Amino acid sequence: MKFLPKLERRLCRLKKKMSRSPLMRKLDLIHESARKKAFQDSCDAYKTQIEMEYVVRNQPTKPSRSNKEVFLSDGSFHQAVGRVLLIAEFFAMMPVKGVTGKHPSKLSFSWRNIRTCFCVAFIASSLVNFSLSLFKVLNNPISFNSIKPLIFRSSVLLVLLVSLNLARHWPQLMMYWHSVEQDLPQYKSQAGRVKMGHTISMVMLVGMMLSLAEHILSMVSAINYASYCNRTADPIQNYFIRTNDEIFFVTSYSTPLAIWGKFQNVYATFIWNYMDMFVMIVSIGLASKFRQLNDDLRNFKGMNMAPSYWSERRIQYRNICILCERMDNAISLITMVSFSNNLYFICVQLLRSLNTMPSVAHAVYFYFSLIFLIGRTLAVSLYSASVHDESRLTLRYLRCVPKESWCPEVKRFTEEVISDEVALTGLKFFHLTRKLVLSVAGTIVTYELVLIQFHEDNDLWDCDQSYYS
Amino acid sequence: MKFLPKLERRLCRLKKKMSRSPLMRKLDLIHESARKKAFQDSCDAYKTQIEMEYVVRNQPTKPSRSNKEVFLSDGSFHQAVGRVLLIAEFFAMMPVKGVTGKHPSKLSFSWRNIRTCFCVAFIASSLVNFSLSLFKVLNNPISFNSIKPLIFRSSVLLVLLVSLNLARHWPQLMMYWHSVEQDLPQYKSQAGRVKMGHTISMVMLVGMMLSLAEHILSMVSAINYASYCNRTADPIQNYFIRTNDEIFFVTSYSTPLAIWGKFQNVYATFIWNYMDMFVMIVSIGLASKFRQLNDDLRNFKGMNMAPSYWSERRIQYRNICILCERMDNAISLITMVSFSNNLYFICVQLLRSLNTMPSVAHAVYFYFSLIFLIGRTLAVSLYSASVHDESRLTLRYLRCVPKESWCPEVKRFTEEVISDEVALTGLKFFHLTRKLVLSVAGTIVTYELVLIQFHEDNDLWDCDQSYYS
Amino acid sequence: MKFLPKLERRLCRLKKKMSRSPLMRKLDLIHESARKKAFQDSCDAYKTQIEMEYVVRNQPTKPSRSNKEVFLSDGSFHQAVGRVLLIAEFFAMMPVKGVTGKHPSKLSFSWRNIRTCFCVAFIASSLVNFSLSLFKVLNNPISFNSIKPLIFRSSVLLVLLVSLNLARHWPQLMMYWHSVEQDLPQYKSQAGRVKMGHTISMVMLVGMMLSLAEHILSMVSAINYASYCNRTADPIQNYFIRTNDEIFFVTSYSTPLAIWGKFQNVYATFIWNYMDMFVMIVSIGLASKFRQLNDDLRNFKGMNMAPSYWSERRIQYRNICILCERMDNAISLITMVSFSNNLYFICVQLLRSLNTMPSVAHAVYFYFSLIFLIGRTLAVSLYSASVHDESRLTLRYLRCVPKESWCPEVKRFTEEVISDEVALTGLKFFHLTRKLVLSVAGTIVTYELVLIQFHEDNDLWDCDQSYYS
Amino acid sequence: MKFLPKLERRLCRLKKKMSRSPLMRKLDLIHESARKKAFQDSCDAYKTQIEMEYVVRNQPTKPSRSNKEVFLSDGSFHQAVGRVLLIAEFFAMMPVKGVTGKHPSKLSFSWRNIRTCFCVAFIASSLVNFSLSLFKVLNNPISFNSIKPLIFRSSVLLVLLVSLNLARHWPQLMMYWHSVEQDLPQYKSQAGRVKMGHTISMVMLVGMMLSLAEHILSMVSAINYASYCNRTADPIQNYFIRTNDEIFFVTSYSTPLAIWGKFQNVYATFIWNYMDMFVMIVSIGLASKFRQLNDDLRNFKGMNMAPSYWSERRIQYRNICILCERMDNAISLITMVSFSNNLYFICVQLLRSLNTMPSVAHAVYFYFSLIFLIGRTLAVSLYSASVHDESRLTLRYLRCVPKESWCPEVKRFTEEVISDEVALTGLKFFHLTRKLVLSVAGTIVTYELVLIQFHEDNDLWDCDQSYYS
Repeated sequence: MKFLPKLERRLCRLKKKMSRSPLMRKLDLIHESARKKAFQDSCDAYKTQIEMEYVVRNQPTKPSRSNKEVFLSDGSFHQAVGRVLLIAEFFAMMPVKGVTGKHPSKLSFSWRNIRTCFCVAFIASSLVNFSLSLFKVLNNPISFNSIKPLIFRSSVLLVLLVSLNLARHWPQLMMYWHSVEQDLPQYKSQAGRVKMGHTISMVMLVGMMLSLAEHILSMVSAINYASYCNRTADPIQNYFIRTNDEIFFVTSYSTPLAIWGKFQNVYATFIWNYMDMFVMIVSIGLASKFRQLNDDLRNFKGMNMAPSYWSERRIQYRNICILCERMDNAISLITMVSFSNNLYFICVQLLRSLNTMPSVAHAVYFYFSLIFLIGRTLAVSLYSASVHDESRLTLRYLRCVPKESWCPEVKRFTEEVISDEVALTGLKFFHLTRKLVLSVAGTIVTYELVLIQFHEDNDLWDCDQSYYS
Repeated sequence: MKFLPKLERRLCRLKKKMSRSPLMRKLDLIHESARKKAFQDSCDAYKTQIEMEYVVRNQPTKPSRSNKEVFLSDGSFHQAVGRVLLIAEFFAMMPVKGVTGKHPSKLSFSWRNIRTCFCVAFIASSLVNFSLSLFKVLNNPISFNSIKPLIFRSSVLLVLLVSLNLARHWPQLMMYWHSVEQDLPQYKSQAGRVKMGHTISMVMLVGMMLSLAEHILSMVSAINYASYCNRTADPIQNYFIRTNDEIFFVTSYSTPLAIWGKFQNVYATFIWNYMDMFVMIVSIGLASKFRQLNDDLRNFKGMNMAPSYWSERRIQYRNICILCERMDNAISLITMVSFSNNLYFICVQLLRSLNTMPSVAHAVYFYFSLIFLIGRTLAVSLYSASVHDESRLTLRYLRCVPKESWCPEVKRFTEEVISDEVALTGLKFFHLTRKLVLSVAGTIVTYELVLIQFHEDNDLWDCDQSYYS
Repeated sequence: MKFLPKLERRLCRLKKKMSRSPLMRKLDLIHESARKKAFQDSCDAYKTQIEMEYVVRNQPTKPSRSNKEVFLSDGSFHQAVGRVLLIAEFFAMMPVKGVTGKHPSKLSFSWRNIRTCFCVAFIASSLVNFSLSLFKVLNNPISFNSIKPLIFRSSVLLVLLVSLNLARHWPQLMMYWHSVEQDLPQYKSQAGRVKMGHTISMVMLVGMMLSLAEHILSMVSAINYASYCNRTADPIQNYFIRTNDEIFFVTSYSTPLAIWGKFQNVYATFIWNYMDMFVMIVSIGLASKFRQLNDDLRNFKGMNMAPSYWSERRIQYRNICILCERMDNAISLITMVSFSNNLYFICVQLLRSLNTMPSVAHAVYFYFSLIFLIGRTLAVSLYSASVHDESRLTLRYLRCVPKESWCPEVKRFTEEVISDEVALTGLKFFHLTRKLVLSVAGTIVTYELVLIQFHEDNDLWDCDQSYYS
Repeated sequence: MKFLPKLERRLCRLKKKMSRSPLMRKLDLIHESARKKAFQDSCDAYKTQIEMEYVVRNQPTKPSRSNKEVFLSDGSFHQAVGRVLLIAEFFAMMPVKGVTGKHPSKLSFSWRNIRTCFCVAFIASSLVNFSLSLFKVLNNPISFNSIKPLIFRSSVLLVLLVSLNLARHWPQLMMYWHSVEQDLPQYKSQAGRVKMGHTISMVMLVGMMLSLAEHILSMVSAINYASYCNRTADPIQNYFIRTNDEIFFVTSYSTPLAIWGKFQNVYATFIWNYMDMFVMIVSIGLASKFRQLNDDLRNFKGMNMAPSYWSERRIQYRNICILCERMDNAISLITMVSFSNNLYFICVQLLRSLNTMPSVAHAVYFYFSLIFLIGRTLAVSLYSASVHDESRLTLRYLRCVPKESWCPEVKRFTEEVISDEVALTGLKFFHLTRKLVLSVAGTIVTYELVLIQFHEDNDLWDCDQSYYS
């Protein structure tokens, strides 16, 4: 009975605020109120809504607990990432069972599962392919350029091994993630709940599409190239000989081997793209958890909340930090491989951009692939930096805590946010923040300027050499 | 009645202090008082003036509220920046209505306004010009040097688009700025109030004058050059063909096109200079707001102020921080473009300085333009770094808070000042601080040393090439 | 009598927790408990075990004080490092008496001790060797490459001198170390106690084995080389002339001199390897002390401990920090020499890798030595960075202190951990952290890219030059 | 009467501690006491001596206030720096009157003073000399190498102007310094008081001697060079023509001009060396003030001091910080010139070291001057970094404050020490810390590696060119 009048009063005030807004500009001219308004703008209305707000908000969530099962279907990282992992499984990565299940407890890993067997078989196949590449490279003069296929294949192999290991711990990680999510303040609208899943899907879709486009362009230019050099009469054979030169450097041409090489190529290209996308997706997940917390803090910005509210938020923040650290431990090797790969490939491709492109097909493929590479690198950097950015944003709301409700818990929360550096890392050697982007860009420019000195215009029509990764 | 004797006593004390100062040096010899004096020097007179000071100061401001309207005419950023925006509008930027109005509430943006139409038309015109440049560059061999006009025109175009977008949000930004300003401790003297406006005007004036001087020199050297190469009999035609080579690369000569090209050139040059000046002006505005707060803190340095005083100052500081962040969000793309442009142009111009200058007109223009460029870059860097410097200065006064009035609010204020990094940024990739200047200088030296290796002395009298941006 | 029921209850709870774990995954489905669990996961069970736990744990350690002598035999750094120093003494370093004694009080240094005399004699001998090298280098054209033996010998000499000085302070350092160790929370299991000693032994063993393997390979390739160039008929003589070219550059061949040179070479190689290993071993020792403290904090993670508990831990943490600083003061010159040496040698060897290897023996030796060098550098960097990492880890447990037991002592502890940068340093010029590894790697790549420009393929079969350090 | 027994007891305890120390090592074997001892080692004896110590120490200082005049003669920076400034005045810098006076109040600056006139005259003379150099450089091809005399003379000129300006503010600065010094805890022994003055004298003496030695060597090698090239019959004339080539590039030889040139040269060389030494001396002064405070804190380390003690120390610390900032504002331009000069000259000289030295005189001069340059740069860097190091050291003693006397004042003191970066700066662009040394070294190596590419062996016997600064 006590709450009704208070609620009424609050609604009244809100309505007044609403109606005031179109008039606001004019009212500002009245100087007597200007001072008060500024105060309210930055930390608005921190007087009467104190504990009531919090209580009122907590009440409606309790009855909704019965139909929680339904709501859950959208907000969790496990469900958002389900289809992404399904695609990965199709490409011999992350052999976890139950990725599309409703609840992370359905996840399991087993060495005898068909996924795992496929994955292990593919790793063995990749190892053979890698050895062939290694053999070819060692039998030719070594340069900054010629080791490109080697680096490409070795990083794919490394990512495969890491993802196999990650698959083993995935069920536990998802269970922990689930428990953290359960504890967080719930989304208020369906839109908020769907957002993360939507972003993840879009990133995956765009990434896959561009990667496919690049691969098709690469095929077109390779066919173009093969038909020019034509060693044999068969154009298909020419194409396969060129793209799998590391195989036919050892043995003579045979169709099954050619198909195996092509299969190997397609898969390797996918995995090479996937590792960047995986880092992005995990980053989106982590950042959205921080955002979920921040959204709640924004709702109560500048209000007089009880210490228990802050204590709860602090523990939730702590939990996301721990989640961040656990995820980072699990994927930081992938992050490291992804970043060093991108750094190396951008350097190589920028150097190659000095070559004169002999055909339009080449030029289109080359510039598309270069822009895709740079764009992907930027996307990984910025998405992964967003985890750090979101984690710092919490500070903004803590700064607006009014004097009256400044308690030891808020102080402790503030100090923790200030002193912790929450971010994904590359094997803990570097933190993924926005400042990193600039230093990576600077490094690329410096290396490029030095490398240009060693550049000699490579004849792309030299049929004895190949420039396909 | 109660205040009069207190005021009298205070005036007495002040007078005593004044009269003591010429004798101060001699009195210091008296060793017994030396210790006490040192104490007073650093945190002087923190015993009796405690609350009275604050009360006394607050009293006189209240009656002056009636003639506030008159005083206001000088202290606000909106009025200080009015003429600057007017000039910008003349050059097709920032199409906001009411920039010279007395109050920011008069500001408005409309797509159907004549200013906006002019601005949009000019953007379209610039786009055509940019396409012509792009066409010319792509039809010539590409080098670090030859893309200069492209970078010049693309950054101008980018700044035009950003400023159009900024214009839409300008009224809100100014309203927020106004509300923050209203809340700040008022200036005590007319001089303090006028200062910011004066600095902004001077920066604008000096910048415009130098920019004009540079453009005239550029014309002189271009006429010199054109008359040497004379393709046609008409010297004016020669001049226009040279300076608008991207137009007459495509079509044959026609006077309207030549005039359009010249108009385009003059406007682009202005906008290119204006973006640096705009960053400077916003920085001056933000820094002066911090200074206004700091001035108040200095007045009460070392005194025993009530917690409410500190709480008020803390909220004011917070408001300026939020203002800083909002302004940064609005202009950080301009800042980024400005900094990367300056970095690139300094590198290019320093490299060109190795060329032998064929005529005195060239040499004068070249060195004037190089020094202007470096000076402008330094000015942007230092003015924008001053926001950060001023925001840190607050700490100095907080350190002198006497033991007796050290309360949780002062503590919180101190911690916020320590842990916040308040500064303009370049898309959040870098913070504009004094340390940045050094690292930019280091980067320029390093790049320059590497670039010198690729330098070949360009024949400036080669009539087939042009070196005008 | 009072403790028995409490102990029983605690065991009961532990058993329940154990039995629950296999069922855990299924139980998570019960949504009502999910929220609670997450809370417990991060800061588990911080309600009832408050002070009891601590009391119970402190009790059993008291009676075991009688047979402390026996337990002590494993946990202390002094004993773990005993054999390492014994080996060093055999190689004329660290002439301290009593390194294998049970207690650090048995340690002593005396100028008249046989070890010290041997050490001083060897330093004199090395000085002669160094002078001969210097003489040879100055009589040949100087290059980045030719000063390698000089840098090798001068750093060995420097390390010898530093270790002699260190030997004088070793007894005091070990006494201080002992007192810090005594005060730390004791290990719970024998495994924990043995671990540090075991790691140190393994590092020493692996390091020595690899160093020996490298030296044998170096000999094989030198013999190969000498037999090709054979100046004289005697192959042994040829070998000695080659490896001690700095001696026989001055005098003619004589067997005693050749043996002295060989002896000098073997010892110098050992000492050169030993300095890296010494830094590693001290790092392992210091990191294990932090780990010992962290293990105790983990045991009581999330529980309500008394302020006295935190006060005690803080003082222990402080003591290890002071220990760290004292050790760093004692060995930071060795660290500096070790790091700059590794940086220089990696640069030189990477450059040499561009040479074509004339024989298989050369190639095997060269690549083995290069990989060993890089691996050793990485190992030193990572082991020494672990001191810093472990010291930061304490923060993790402090973050989980429940609200109820958050007291000024915990706050002070937290602030100290945050603001102190505990790490070994290179003469205080740089701190050994994981970030350093990346910047060292970046430096190597940059220098290498620039140095490649000066590279000319050296003829390794040029009998007038030698490439042995 | 009350103090005597307490004092007696305290002496007793001290005696016991003394007598225990030789036995200490043996006693440590007694395990029961080990734990206690460790505790005492780090924060020794923090139980009974609480306030008494402080009171006792404060008592004896009071009666000594009568003969303070005598004690003052040694501890102050003003007196320590007196002779240094006297030398400077002889070399036309820092024209302040009363530098050797007993008290800073005797200091004064006047434009009509003979010192100031001399100084202004010399600046005019230097300006003429600089113009001549500029004229010569502009009439020859410009290179990294040829602008050396220009940079040399322009920085000398700049330092002269800055020092003239500094002289105007010197009396005030010294008065402030004096007041800070008066307030600091007094030295206990005469040795402590004399130390700073002694260090300053030694730095000045060694610096002057080495600078003189370098100048004489430079003369010897120049005479050598001039006699080889002999343009005229007169060897003295030859020498003057060579060393003052910027003068005789314009006019024909005349003895008065030659002497003026020589005088100019000697003075410029002194001033060039003096600016480094001045930075060192100010650093020594500031660091010694921090040390004075730290010495007092060390005496009471781990004891239970009253809050008033900490409050007093905090204010003293704050005063030294303010002093530091004021001194930095006054000299930071000199610091900047000194650092950039050293950086440039080391780069130039290292490049020249690749030249073959034609005579022994040249080689001796060259290597002496190079080593002197590097040594001086290191000395400036390390001495100026010591200000920062000493200011951080305070933290060490604050960490050992026992739990019982941990009060808000200690907390505030600690936080101020942590968050302030007290150091001399180069125009606020960089802070002079130990980390700077490493980055400067890294910069030199990088620039050097790049510059080597442009190096061509200059013929030092080319009589048309000169290599004297």
